[in-house]
Amino acid sequence: MPSNPLLTRWQQGRTTINGWLCIPTSWTAEVMAHAGFDSLTIDAQHGLATDLTAILPMLQAIATTDTVPLVRVAWNDPAQHMRMLDAGAQGIICPMLNTRTETEAFVQACRYPPQGYRSIGPLRASLGDEAGYLGKANDEVLTMAMIETADGYKNLADIAQTPTLDALYVGTWDLCMTMGLEKMADFDDPVLLGMLDNILNVAAKNNLLAAIHCGTPENAIKMREMGFRMVTPLTDTFSLQQAVGEGLRKLR
Amino acid sequence: MPSNPLLTRWQQGRTTINGWLCIPTSWTAEVMAHAGFDSLTIDAQHGLATDLTAILPMLQAIATTDTVPLVRVAWNDPAQHMRMLDAGAQGIICPMLNTRTETEAFVQACRYPPQGYRSIGPLRASLGDEAGYLGKANDEVLTMAMIETADGYKNLADIAQTPTLDALYVGTWDLCMTMGLEKMADFDDPVLLGMLDNILNVAAKNNLLAAIHCGTPENAIKMREMGFRMVTPLTDTFSLQQAVGEGLRKLR
Amino acid sequence: MPSNPLLTRWQQGRTTINGWLCIPTSWTAEVMAHAGFDSLTIDAQHGLATDLTAILPMLQAIATTDTVPLVRVAWNDPAQHMRMLDAGAQGIICPMLNTRTETEAFVQACRYPPQGYRSIGPLRASLGDEAGYLGKANDEVLTMAMIETADGYKNLADIAQTPTLDALYVGTWDLCMTMGLEKMADFDDPVLLGMLDNILNVAAKNNLLAAIHCGTPENAIKMREMGFRMVTPLTDTFSLQQAVGEGLRKLR
Amino acid sequence: MPSNPLLTRWQQGRTTINGWLCIPTSWTAEVMAHAGFDSLTIDAQHGLATDLTAILPMLQAIATTDTVPLVRVAWNDPAQHMRMLDAGAQGIICPMLNTRTETEAFVQACRYPPQGYRSIGPLRASLGDEAGYLGKANDEVLTMAMIETADGYKNLADIAQTPTLDALYVGTWDLCMTMGLEKMADFDDPVLLGMLDNILNVAAKNNLLAAIHCGTPENAIKMREMGFRMVTPLTDTFSLQQAVGEGLRKLR
Amino acid sequence: MPSNPLLTRWQQGRTTINGWLCIPTSWTAEVMAHAGFDSLTIDAQHGLATDLTAILPMLQAIATTDTVPLVRVAWNDPAQHMRMLDAGAQGIICPMLNTRTETEAFVQACRYPPQGYRSIGPLRASLGDEAGYLGKANDEVLTMAMIETADGYKNLADIAQTPTLDALYVGTWDLCMTMGLEKMADFDDPVLLGMLDNILNVAAKNNLLAAIHCGTPENAIKMREMGFRMVTPLTDTFSLQQAVGEGLRKLR
Amino acid sequence: MPSNPLLTRWQQGRTTINGWLCIPTSWTAEVMAHAGFDSLTIDAQHGLATDLTAILPMLQAIATTDTVPLVRVAWNDPAQHMRMLDAGAQGIICPMLNTRTETEAFVQACRYPPQGYRSIGPLRASLGDEAGYLGKANDEVLTMAMIETADGYKNLADIAQTPTLDALYVGTWDLCMTMGLEKMADFDDPVLLGMLDNILNVAAKNNLLAAIHCGTPENAIKMREMGFRMVTPLTDTFSLQQAVGEGLRKLR
Repeated sequence: MPSNPLLTRWQQGRTTINGWLCIPTSWTAEVMAHAGFDSLTIDAQHGLATDLTAILPMLQAIATTDTVPLVRVAWNDPAQHMRMLDAGAQGIICPMLNTRTETEAFVQACRYPPQGYRSIGPLRASLGDEAGYLGKANDEVLTMAMIETADGYKNLADIAQTPTLDALYVGTWDLCMTMGLEKMADFDDPVLLGMLDNILNVAAKNNLLAAIHCGTPENAIKMREMGFRMVTPLTDTFSLQQAVGEGLRKLR
Repeated sequence: MPSNPLLTRWQQGRTTINGWLCIPTSWTAEVMAHAGFDSLTIDAQHGLATDLTAILPMLQAIATTDTVPLVRVAWNDPAQHMRMLDAGAQGIICPMLNTRTETEAFVQACRYPPQGYRSIGPLRASLGDEAGYLGKANDEVLTMAMIETADGYKNLADIAQTPTLDALYVGTWDLCMTMGLEKMADFDDPVLLGMLDNILNVAAKNNLLAAIHCGTPENAIKMREMGFRMVTPLTDTFSLQQAVGEGLRKLR
Repeated sequence: MPSNPLLTRWQQGRTTINGWLCIPTSWTAEVMAHAGFDSLTIDAQHGLATDLTAILPMLQAIATTDTVPLVRVAWNDPAQHMRMLDAGAQGIICPMLNTRTETEAFVQACRYPPQGYRSIGPLRASLGDEAGYLGKANDEVLTMAMIETADGYKNLADIAQTPTLDALYVGTWDLCMTMGLEKMADFDDPVLLGMLDNILNVAAKNNLLAAIHCGTPENAIKMREMGFRMVTPLTDTFSLQQAVGEGLRKLR
Repeated sequence: MPSNPLLTRWQQGRTTINGWLCIPTSWTAEVMAHAGFDSLTIDAQHGLATDLTAILPMLQAIATTDTVPLVRVAWNDPAQHMRMLDAGAQGIICPMLNTRTETEAFVQACRYPPQGYRSIGPLRASLGDEAGYLGKANDEVLTMAMIETADGYKNLADIAQTPTLDALYVGTWDLCMTMGLEKMADFDDPVLLGMLDNILNVAAKNNLLAAIHCGTPENAIKMREMGFRMVTPLTDTFSLQQAVGEGLRKLR
Repeated sequence: MPSNPLLTRWQQGRTTINGWLCIPTSWTAEVMAHAGFDSLTIDAQHGLATDLTAILPMLQAIATTDTVPLVRVAWNDPAQHMRMLDAGAQGIICPMLNTRTETEAFVQACRYPPQGYRSIGPLRASLGDEAGYLGKANDEVLTMAMIETADGYKNLADIAQTPTLDALYVGTWDLCMTMGLEKMADFDDPVLLGMLDNILNVAAKNNLLAAIHCGTPENAIKMREMGFRMVTPLTDTFSLQQAVGEGLRKLR
Repeated sequence: MPSNPLLTRWQQGRTTINGWLCIPTSWTAEVMAHAGFDSLTIDAQHGLATDLTAILPMLQAIATTDTVPLVRVAWNDPAQHMRMLDAGAQGIICPMLNTRTETEAFVQACRYPPQGYRSIGPLRASLGDEAGYLGKANDEVLTMAMIETADGYKNLADIAQTPTLDALYVGTWDLCMTMGLEKMADFDDPVLLGMLDNILNVAAKNNLLAAIHCGTPENAIKMREMGFRMVTPLTDTFSLQQAVGEGLRKLR
């Protein structure tokens, strides 16, 4: 595993762009990896690739480029965190975290002892760097806690202090719904913007990176301007649907 | 996702017939879907299809007909409940429930806030009805609690009061074993029939549908007469074994 | 297999729109099937789904809608023609045909005796219409001969007289290259337009449908105006690449 | 590869029973292998398993029992014959043979030099008998020529003299259709019975085994009595459909 | 399921040799099964086969020989324990156990009532012995608790008294790391040897089998001499890497 | 597709080392790609990966390194040649060629017009170099004709003059068998050495590269000294078998 280029880019002050993979095939993963994202996240929660049988070849396809592969796991399940890291994911985005305790369980599953309880066996992750991987993994593997439930938002300050946590990742749609907002993911809604401002402040105070799910490139531009350092502007499936829908409209 | 036809049929007083899929292939799923069941349940617990890599094409194959696809999950795991619903299952049958607390955790994983904590991302479930799905999912997704452990049977009355639970599904074999019955799934055994009667009463009292695993069409007829409103008369594997065994016997 | 709706639409004088599938997954096939194409062609030649292991679930996914599934096979191989028809493709687009003899071999592989030599065993194709399929298959299965080689173009008049052939499908890119045109698939190039005009005339004279690979919706509109009755305006992969590329450009 | 038990049984005068696999999964292959057939044929022509990705695990599943695995290939394609033998099939049933020349091309693809032109590389076939396989393969691998086209039937006497051919396998359905019989596979039809009698005579004269596709156990009993030495009474898919259809009828 | 031969061999006083499978393919599983191990463990934690889609054909491939198939699951998850046993694993190696309570949850998931809470449905496990499986499974299914965390080592005496537990399996690498040893899996390190001695004693006192992960055949010989009764000398992936590395070195 | 590094190395006078992949999984392909071969050949003839479903992820796994991916196809089938090149193979090794005519059919299937008849659609091959691929493919795609049949050896001089052919690849085992040699692939046998000398001379005279299948690193060293410029010293499966066999012998 090469050193994580996302870390370097963030240290240089760049806002990185993250693509989202729901299509369960190594072919589309490779196409997306050639598009020029800084990172690509395989969505093992709502996407259609959920087990290594599908995810391993996607990770390999991404590794044909310099794009950093991340996995949004299905749940806060230590077995899945470890498996994805062993298979070469360079970071985990964990959904539905409600408390500091849950967040610690997540983060420690991604750290070798003494920082955590990750089990040894990084077969693919250490390929080509068998000697060095164990020494650098705890520093380079990214842990991103999704803030997307009412409880998670309430316990934000506490969650943000979890040792060795790297980032807060806003799950905009779920957050809007659990907070009872009238409109889903309306990036002009002052209520949403107020919450995002709060999250940015807590992140800054705790030296965490702030990341966010944006839905469209236009929203991503706004969020970058607001201060988020990693933005997810689009998914493979929605992009395909949009392009094809537009093409068909021209023909009708 | 079309509106759930099982709901309509039950409102019309019909007893629906449910097939059971253990063979992990979209081909047999489609063959079964053409046989004329009201619903088909993919068994992700004891069957051989356990992850979306195998289950997604089965759900798609069933969707070529009007048969309603259900999934019997492997365990009371919210990630799996949500994943199967996102992929288009129109109901979840959850095994091994022992208590009301467990049942609430199950049911709420299948309901969007404020009724539950299902996370948003129904990629396949909302295909063709992107605008409407979120509004109707909580009403149409079926949640069926398996009654099949000694504790579950003991806590039946409590479990049955779980808000938004739709049905009790009797796991006859496990129930017989955990209750220490001498014969397994003997539908003439008065002890078993007594328990089933009790389950039917509790279901009726709580306005829940009662469903049951029957093993054979003959047992299913009995159970339908007894009052169960959804009966599972056969599985793909056992049907194949029986037909082939019978064919070979003729030749010997 | 329902009666082929493409036939009906062509009889009504409509020009149908055909999508092109290179991504080897049932998920994208289903997404494309919901987009509203009249037909979708699985490209088993240059696409990434080439065997039934990948193609069967795609055919099933398309069959959840009214979209007609076609397969562009890899070569003029009777085994593959028959296999795709057995699996439920409602038509075959055969590449690289050079002569009438080759075209007859193709078409007859798709017709049951006495018209051809297709072998009996339409397992999936006849699902739901076991009694009727054999009687109507020869009338409803579409055979489309690709005109895309210098020899094929030279022998056009002869190829077009192949009994029970349904359509000529122009493989624009290969045709341009084998004819030594300076620009590839430039739909303003009078040399290309002259050839297309010739193909349209031969098709009309022989009562064949004319279809064409267009690359973009804009070209497809031109080709529809020129007289083609089935146009392929886009592929899944190129649409994805374009949409994602555009999204990323906005962010840079 | 153990010595082929079919050879022994035929030498003992037994008529062997052959099952037919169309479902593309190792699970059903293993279920069928436990049912007690002498041999099982994976149908790579009309069945849904057509490439090693699906067929290899089926061959392995069958190898957990003493049942002999055969493959009915999709076409007379030497690459496929060799691949199936390398993967452990103990015999090939080749469809649609019309002439002696075609039959020689088939049989020789299954024989190592100097008898044929099979290429060396029996990775799985020789597992456990690396030293002995090459020496015995030409004697033990079964080659079965399907007689199912009008030309094949016309050239029967010639085909039957192909050196090292082991058996004639009657493709009853295709034979009826190509010969223009009014009823398909009616085993009481004197025209069909006359043809079968002829095939049996030619087989006997050339010291070949005669095998036949029967559709039902009842027909298989008839054909066994008529003199066929290998009978195929049923397929997995049709057995499943029948058993499930019967079960549902009881419930209606 | 045949009676478990590992039990017999241990009763005869033999030390058995266990191979380790990380490559997710039935081909390599079958190659390894022919190599002559007493048992083979599919590593569903750090290996690349993690779901039944990949593991089922591996279990079938192993079942073509007398080698006993075991699975090292990814986590102490009852659903996974039961699924692997249903699919034919004859024993479960459970990682990362810290306490007696956790160990009881593990072991009982592998035992039918009244000893545990395993759910009924051994589809593949009972193939060929449908009548007898339920009666013998609790006696023959092996449960092996990994001792590899600091807490697990501290609670060793307590864990070892878990009713119906069969074995302690030392996870040498994780144990060294969580105990803070300077060298990883150095089988000459007196600190490690002291811990192993302690584990052997506790195992002996509780009538448990002691097993260990050794990394190399040389270490396995040492551990066999020290008293371990099941030793794991190598993995498929590391063996492949070593052999290929050595071959390439000769050529440079 | 990057420019083919094999061409550069051969121009520098280096003898390149080629590994052979029979295991059908992207994991072992990636492990092998990290071992340091100049090229890796996926064996789609005798290996277990034969269709893109298995081969695509292997090509992607190899592309995570600088190793050049080649495919040994199953037969001289233009559809397969083109498909493998479209999917990113940088060269094709074609087995069982007997004549110049066959060799021309092979080579021209790998060349775009006017040199050949390869069809346009290099989806993966051109990923990242969409503009440049068509211009350089004819120069950089490698075509290697296997010399391994008696006819092929007889027609060697003629075959070697096939325009745009790049290399002769000796299939040592098949060659020994078809030529009736007493010992198979004995690299000390003067008869074999004489034939190899002849092949080297014909290659040199026609400016072709000479490559050879060696079986062991020791044989590969000899063949490199004899003048072959690409040597295949080992396969994944045999290396695994050897290493595991050796490990087990130490323990017995």
